[in-house]
Amino acid sequence: MNQMVATALPGIPLVAAGDDLTALTLAGLDGAGIALCDGDVLVVASKVVAKAEGRSHRLSAVKASPAAREVARVCDKDPRLVELILAEAREVLRIRPGLIVVEHRLGFVCANAGIDHSNLGVDPDVVLLLPLDPDESARRLRSGLQAATGVGVGVIINDSHGRAWRQGTVGVAIGVAGLAPLTDMRGHDDLFGQTLQVTVLGTADEIAAAASLLQGAAAERSPIVHMRGAPHRPGAGGLAEVLRPHKLDMFR
Amino acid sequence: MNQMVATALPGIPLVAAGDDLTALTLAGLDGAGIALCDGDVLVVASKVVAKAEGRSHRLSAVKASPAAREVARVCDKDPRLVELILAEAREVLRIRPGLIVVEHRLGFVCANAGIDHSNLGVDPDVVLLLPLDPDESARRLRSGLQAATGVGVGVIINDSHGRAWRQGTVGVAIGVAGLAPLTDMRGHDDLFGQTLQVTVLGTADEIAAAASLLQGAAAERSPIVHMRGAPHRPGAGGLAEVLRPHKLDMFR
Repeated sequence: MNQMVATALPGIPLVAAGDDLTALTLAGLDGAGIALCDGDVLVVASKVVAKAEGRSHRLSAVKASPAAREVARVCDKDPRLVELILAEAREVLRIRPGLIVVEHRLGFVCANAGIDHSNLGVDPDVVLLLPLDPDESARRLRSGLQAATGVGVGVIINDSHGRAWRQGTVGVAIGVAGLAPLTDMRGHDDLFGQTLQVTVLGTADEIAAAASLLQGAAAERSPIVHMRGAPHRPGAGGLAEVLRPHKLDMFR
Repeated sequence: MNQMVATALPGIPLVAAGDDLTALTLAGLDGAGIALCDGDVLVVASKVVAKAEGRSHRLSAVKASPAAREVARVCDKDPRLVELILAEAREVLRIRPGLIVVEHRLGFVCANAGIDHSNLGVDPDVVLLLPLDPDESARRLRSGLQAATGVGVGVIINDSHGRAWRQGTVGVAIGVAGLAPLTDMRGHDDLFGQTLQVTVLGTADEIAAAASLLQGAAAERSPIVHMRGAPHRPGAGGLAEVLRPHKLDMFR
């Protein structure tokens, strides 16, 4: 039967800088009674990857530039937070009260450069940046799991993004290893033997969205989701494949 | 355990105008050995809803207006197809070779007004429009299933949409009944007792994306997906909740 099972790994503790995500994932799989199989995918919330990699910053240690202070005035944010947002951005697309839409240095368009300030812990001085290189984070976890189990799974680091025209955030992939982020159906015959012309499926993003349902808003209690039966093709991975080239971007 | 199971219902035949989606869904559930429970969600590909509702049109019966012929010249499409696209659109946002980005009469932004021409069957003269009122289609299936089983499930009609800045299509909800399309976390405490400020989850779209993985590109062999354990809140549904109001749209 064509079936997909997503399991939020139980017992994952609060993650701190220096924690070993491979060890946490293996313990969570063990707790869930899951033995990894070919074709499985692990989806890890960017927040815990960033925490493990020590990507939290103290606002009190940041000095806001004049440019950041000017943007902060328009969007009504802490100028030191804006300084960090601008430092993580390649380009600012829109500024509105409460919101700075940027092209992140990693290449995707997102709000506030993905910097999380809302629920990092009890200390309002601490903010969390996205992982430095989520593709590399995904490859590292994949390698660690392969060394421990002998199975080469797919790994996706996911984050919650808003969309241009729809309300509500959805999980998307910001790092991918060991699976093809897109599934290109062009040239394949459909049921009737006609050739599909234009269909490229955003497979990694759909897996990221499915896992996000179980991670919930904070992605803190259930940051690691194991997926079995999620259709995808093998591949090296890489976020770059998912990003629309600037010359094809009609909504910048 | 925090787990979600998605099952593509087996044995769904090719759908034709006038077919009863409730009967097909009940037969598919039976084939999968699934008895509906509270909290279950059925996701149905827009294509089979549209087919059942007789939304196919013959291009040979369409007369292209001068406006449609002019747009067709720019985007290099069949002028009669363009005529149908424009008739389904409230507003044209962008025109490029091969592509017309519109605000659909249903309110969402999508390519080519969601009119499917690539793989409808052996007859290249036939194209398929989106369902007339996908919310109503969802409510009708929900009512039918409730009458037959006594269980009030959630129903989502999903379609595959491109995104502004990312490659690959993802499943999104275009009709929703019996569940809250968005999950508003604002005002809820996170793990640390701080209040989440800005998080509204696009739950219906995430469920739509998860189901889309199993439906595949053609959504023809596996058009109906049963989801158990997908976290969501009860609600009446309705696509309107998911659409970003024009005054908050920064990318038109």
